Amino acid sequence: MMLKSLFEPSSVAVIGASREPGKLGHEILKNILDAGFKGKLYPINPKADEVLGLKCYPSVKDVPEGVELAVVIVPARFVPSVISDCSAKGVKAAVVISGGFSETGEAGAQLERQLVEAARKAGIRVIGPNCQGVNSSAVGLCASWPLVRVKGPISVISQSGTVLAALACWAEEDGIGISKLVALGNKCDVDEIELLEYLAEDPETKVIALYIEGTRDGRKFVEVARKAARRKPVLVLKGGRTAKGAEAVKSHTRSLAGMDAIFDAAFRQAGVIRASSVEDFYDACKALSTLPRPTGKNVAIVTSSGGSGILATDACEELGLNVVGLPVEVKDALKEKLPPECILRNPLDLTGSAVSEMYDAAASALASSGAVDSILMIVGDPMPGIAEVISKNLQRGKPIVPVMLGGGKAETEERAKLRELRLPVYSCPVRGAKALATLTRYTAQQG
Amino acid sequence: MMLKSLFEPSSVAVIGASREPGKLGHEILKNILDAGFKGKLYPINPKADEVLGLKCYPSVKDVPEGVELAVVIVPARFVPSVISDCSAKGVKAAVVISGGFSETGEAGAQLERQLVEAARKAGIRVIGPNCQGVNSSAVGLCASWPLVRVKGPISVISQSGTVLAALACWAEEDGIGISKLVALGNKCDVDEIELLEYLAEDPETKVIALYIEGTRDGRKFVEVARKAARRKPVLVLKGGRTAKGAEAVKSHTRSLAGMDAIFDAAFRQAGVIRASSVEDFYDACKALSTLPRPTGKNVAIVTSSGGSGILATDACEELGLNVVGLPVEVKDALKEKLPPECILRNPLDLTGSAVSEMYDAAASALASSGAVDSILMIVGDPMPGIAEVISKNLQRGKPIVPVMLGGGKAETEERAKLRELRLPVYSCPVRGAKALATLTRYTAQQG
Repeated sequence: MMLKSLFEPSSVAVIGASREPGKLGHEILKNILDAGFKGKLYPINPKADEVLGLKCYPSVKDVPEGVELAVVIVPARFVPSVISDCSAKGVKAAVVISGGFSETGEAGAQLERQLVEAARKAGIRVIGPNCQGVNSSAVGLCASWPLVRVKGPISVISQSGTVLAALACWAEEDGIGISKLVALGNKCDVDEIELLEYLAEDPETKVIALYIEGTRDGRKFVEVARKAARRKPVLVLKGGRTAKGAEAVKSHTRSLAGMDAIFDAAFRQAGVIRASSVEDFYDACKALSTLPRPTGKNVAIVTSSGGSGILATDACEELGLNVVGLPVEVKDALKEKLPPECILRNPLDLTGSAVSEMYDAAASALASSGAVDSILMIVGDPMPGIAEVISKNLQRGKPIVPVMLGGGKAETEERAKLRELRLPVYSCPVRGAKALATLTRYTAQQG
Repeated sequence: MMLKSLFEPSSVAVIGASREPGKLGHEILKNILDAGFKGKLYPINPKADEVLGLKCYPSVKDVPEGVELAVVIVPARFVPSVISDCSAKGVKAAVVISGGFSETGEAGAQLERQLVEAARKAGIRVIGPNCQGVNSSAVGLCASWPLVRVKGPISVISQSGTVLAALACWAEEDGIGISKLVALGNKCDVDEIELLEYLAEDPETKVIALYIEGTRDGRKFVEVARKAARRKPVLVLKGGRTAKGAEAVKSHTRSLAGMDAIFDAAFRQAGVIRASSVEDFYDACKALSTLPRPTGKNVAIVTSSGGSGILATDACEELGLNVVGLPVEVKDALKEKLPPECILRNPLDLTGSAVSEMYDAAASALASSGAVDSILMIVGDPMPGIAEVISKNLQRGKPIVPVMLGGGKAETEERAKLRELRLPVYSCPVRGAKALATLTRYTAQQG
């Protein structure tokens, strides 16, 4: 597929590379270098001999070897001719980061048509223009910003550069990592439908997150999204739910947000999961890309914080999960293993004197019970060893959603271990419950 | 008022101080020391001469000078006699951290009655037992855990130690800080009503956050909460909304969560703001304790991220705020000051090439317009100088709720500056919108 040149190019030209720190043409070249791009890298700038230690060429046509992908950051008016140069060089795909096209009015739209024409003639596939670029962690190609390097299971397609960047930053911070990021920009050629099709087949992508404001072909979108959602979770965040939001969409990407109810029905029909905020979007990605699937909606809550356990119980019940009665066999097994102050019900309250061995006993008993499908593990005041307990018990095949809060230094240390283990952790019992509910809903829908 | 001895004691005895790191009696003494307690501090332990460099006494009765507050961490069975010793010494208040009382069954309840009787006889006011202690930042008294030292405007009363600790940790992390924290535990004497009354009058407390699972005297609670809410914002998070949550409440604190609808009506009647999760609780505290009040519900959204602006527009509208049309005078003023790619509507989209001067121009024009009551400022890909712009424009008296996301290193730096300035920042447009909606609702209700 042509899109392979976008995500796994053997050579990249950065057209508009700049020597001036702070300029986009500098930062992007630097990010590609710092991400450790595995292929050949050519800065293009007629006014420089060298940028960031790399030999610089006046035009892409002057590069002595082949160029597979072009990253374009020159002013809009030069872009059509740059694309023609790329054509001469046999470039397969271009990421046009430059703005100043159809988003600015008729003159820009005219330039965009010239860009498309040049690209079509040359058989060059185009991402953008007016976009925040592309990041493909497998080959160390961060042709975007900020610099995000941690490889992982989440791929993102987004009509918003910032939403894309936020997910990427959080995924890096949490050690979960990203696979492929694409900022759509004006979608003059490649759009979310084609990318969805590609990422559905991509073995490195475990979860697809899609921020859109509209789609050009609703029927095709539903068809492709449905196929993708059968293979892996597809999450969608869509702006323009309200009348004023829909108006803002028109100004931003000229999409027709249309009647939100129609989108909502389409998403449902396609089996994609709709998120309600950027954080909710990311929280769901994190759970779906790292945890095993629950076989049903019976959840057991284990906690050292009675209050958090109660808040989680409320949230789970309200979100359609079932806070099941503690199974007799679990009660019997734990009676001997836990101190008498523990409250043997669901939520299972290990109380403030909980240590990680108690969590271990609880998790292993719950994981062995056929009546429990998932575990929400709330660790108030986290104690040494809890990260290992979570990791070990996840091997038993049932999802464990960890929540940590109120812990000061010990919490920081255990969070760092979970990061190393690439396991998710949430900061609020309700957010953990939400992520688990999404995980459960997705699995149920898969049948 | 007697509770002054709890929050501003001139001398504190830690009864059950331990030399062994990891033990509660060690950690609490250490936290009081590390928080820089301003009064005299006496470790009590019959088996030690010295703990953490402080001279240790076998009994509180052996302390050569007066003791105003006792922090008690000895096993439950010793607590009644410890309280009698405190009586002999003229102690005014005791924080009983030890568990093993009414929460464990009849024998414990019996001990708790003895504790109460001894305290009543001596006129000693008691917090707890079975609680996570007290923290009063003004005098450096962190008789709780983890160690939290940053002074600030948020006071918390909580039936959950972890919820208390989570708020405190986040407030410290964000540089907002805390004033007084009280973990209620079994509430054998001092309860949320009395504390609410006290904190309503406390000049250092700007916002009161209350986590409860039930209250003994609903009528009195409403009366006191209403009075408090007239003076300053009172936020409440209550566990036990669902049937299963209410059952869990019974096991946790033996409170009757009762019909949630009744609580909800009472909260409304009292004018307290109900939160839905621990994070939501904290987010609201942060806005209410740091930002000026909006005089109406007309919000202007300024953003460098079109997508985030749209998501915020949806959230504001859904939360009852009014994303007002951009006033003509603002449009006129900004036409000359902003580059042509900016979209002069609401949300006001400065686009991805925004710099802090553009935010400054936008914020100052919006702050001067009578048609705008509040500003939601979304900074995707934060740029140098933005923290100062926020701080400067807040001087104009209108609330600005900052949201930062997707920014990598530059974001980290600007967040650090906001922390120094003790200004709030949110990570998700929807969370920012929620906090602003709460701020607006509270102000409207105050009339």
